[in-house]
Amino acid sequence: MGNMRTVSWNFDHGTVEMIDQRLLPGEFKTVQFASVPEVAEAITSMVVRGAPAIGAAAAFGMALSAQRSLAEDTAELFRALKTDGDILKAARPTAVNLAWAVDHMLDVAKENLNLEPDDFRDALLNEAQTIADEDIRINQQIGKFGSALLPHKSTVIHHCNTGALATVDYGTALGVIRAAFEGGKDIHVLVDETRPRLQGARLTAWELDQLGIPHEIITDNAAGSFLATGDISAVLVGADRVAANGDVANKIGTYMLALAAKDNNIPFYVAVPTSTIDLSLPSGAEIPIESREEDEVLDLQRSGKPIAPPGSHARNPAFDITPQRLVTAFITEHGVIHPPYQENLKSAVEKSLKK
Amino acid sequence: MGNMRTVSWNFDHGTVEMIDQRLLPGEFKTVQFASVPEVAEAITSMVVRGAPAIGAAAAFGMALSAQRSLAEDTAELFRALKTDGDILKAARPTAVNLAWAVDHMLDVAKENLNLEPDDFRDALLNEAQTIADEDIRINQQIGKFGSALLPHKSTVIHHCNTGALATVDYGTALGVIRAAFEGGKDIHVLVDETRPRLQGARLTAWELDQLGIPHEIITDNAAGSFLATGDISAVLVGADRVAANGDVANKIGTYMLALAAKDNNIPFYVAVPTSTIDLSLPSGAEIPIESREEDEVLDLQRSGKPIAPPGSHARNPAFDITPQRLVTAFITEHGVIHPPYQENLKSAVEKSLKK
Repeated sequence: MGNMRTVSWNFDHGTVEMIDQRLLPGEFKTVQFASVPEVAEAITSMVVRGAPAIGAAAAFGMALSAQRSLAEDTAELFRALKTDGDILKAARPTAVNLAWAVDHMLDVAKENLNLEPDDFRDALLNEAQTIADEDIRINQQIGKFGSALLPHKSTVIHHCNTGALATVDYGTALGVIRAAFEGGKDIHVLVDETRPRLQGARLTAWELDQLGIPHEIITDNAAGSFLATGDISAVLVGADRVAANGDVANKIGTYMLALAAKDNNIPFYVAVPTSTIDLSLPSGAEIPIESREEDEVLDLQRSGKPIAPPGSHARNPAFDITPQRLVTAFITEHGVIHPPYQENLKSAVEKSLKK
Repeated sequence: MGNMRTVSWNFDHGTVEMIDQRLLPGEFKTVQFASVPEVAEAITSMVVRGAPAIGAAAAFGMALSAQRSLAEDTAELFRALKTDGDILKAARPTAVNLAWAVDHMLDVAKENLNLEPDDFRDALLNEAQTIADEDIRINQQIGKFGSALLPHKSTVIHHCNTGALATVDYGTALGVIRAAFEGGKDIHVLVDETRPRLQGARLTAWELDQLGIPHEIITDNAAGSFLATGDISAVLVGADRVAANGDVANKIGTYMLALAAKDNNIPFYVAVPTSTIDLSLPSGAEIPIESREEDEVLDLQRSGKPIAPPGSHARNPAFDITPQRLVTAFITEHGVIHPPYQENLKSAVEKSLKK
């Protein structure tokens, strides 16, 4: 993908441009979205996925709202923005970065209500650009702090995709791996395939391949066996939302992976920007968990060749909650956060707000 | 499948007949095997799988050896039998039932060395038939004892396939579910799809569908989430080998499932015939774990449509070890076995030998 960002503003077309992640690794293709409902649908259907990436997509969606609106005064632009913000927020429920980005853009809009419409439009587009640029800078910081936690020679297990494709660029947990590799560490990755949508086998393996980082794919089922018998240095994951007490909502399967790490005294690290920490929710029990359609389970790769008998049904929760007692540390752009999480996560978020 | 057995002797052709489980649920087809290397290859390539079923397949393989041998005296028949026994034992390493059945057939052969060749042949075929008939009777006993452990209204999680298809008929862990259902319990099954070979989605869902037992398929990743938040009564699995201390070798993923059951105080039951208990191995560390080819992971359903980038590699251990501390109880044909396992598994095996 070179310097291609996962999600960006296309100045030629005045559109939100995204890599269509549903087609990878078979095909690399970018698509343009010219309206907020299209951006929302791209988030829902997972053209773009990964908590930081959908945050950036929502920010550009808000900029798009203002850019495309025919409103002749700023107050009207702002009213449309609020409506479009609700459309974007409804696209997926679990990753807090989506709501965070929408609310942040609305705050910036409010601060600029005195501007002329075109200046208001520019302010919003600039802010979306800033969020995207900042995402990359944050990930590089996460990478730097996380890399220091890994031994020189490491085999790590990684779940789902948390790389460039899950962010604007560089990645969170995969950014840690990348930073370690670029810093000269001898790193090997066991890539959980991550059923049902195979983000590990499809996307993480593709990114690692492009970066030249040694890796092998395993079924999600096999992670426990490698943790028990292999020479694993750490488990690295991202998160879609972290509650105030440190409970983690992340891709389905994370909880069992964390249990297996704990059972073998192997560090379990969660790499997140502070925008993923939701201090408004006391614990994981309050995090909304998305259930997705059963065909994601029954019809692998949407091949039309079902894996189960005709008429079968499936249940498909997309995320689970990993209790904070299983998390060794969080890796954020403000450094590594150890327990007690209640206090230390709060401090990290406050640092971000003070900047 | 009606009254069709997973593996049986075909008297018309003088062959070992098996349901080709690789084709299910798309196609129901039986195949004939006319030589021991063919039977061994059927076991290796998983035409037949499931510890008790491959035990029965090996027993019929030994009968086939004698039936097809042109040897004119019993001593020569016996020599060929020993060679063929080694071929069968090498077909798969983890399930002890395979070696158990071969050794049992060799013991019976030794006891009958005084017979004329044709009577010797008959004795071996009769013994294979007895093993197969006994397997069904044992499973029905397991079903009876296991069913009593389940509440009247139960949702259970089941891993891999342990049903009629994993045995000669009726099943072990799935036999417990079947017995509970047939006994009038209100039972619902969450079926782990069981990557990489999808025995849950393909075979268990097919069997439950035929039996009319309510069920839904879940990804293996989702089991932890249901154990933490759902109203799950028990986890039920089979085993490929149980060591003397109660450590369990079973389908990859079982260990993480057992951890999640334990973390939520939900009973984790292992349903096994005593022939699966290997008192010669002190712990799970000594159980040989089969690694299978990487294409099982990379090429889902052998569709020729890889899930990962070209050139990707995978590691594919087929089984893992669940430490005995995570097992609530074993369900055997001699009743439910509670800790301490070292003593109580030994007693159960001794009961079998005394019969």
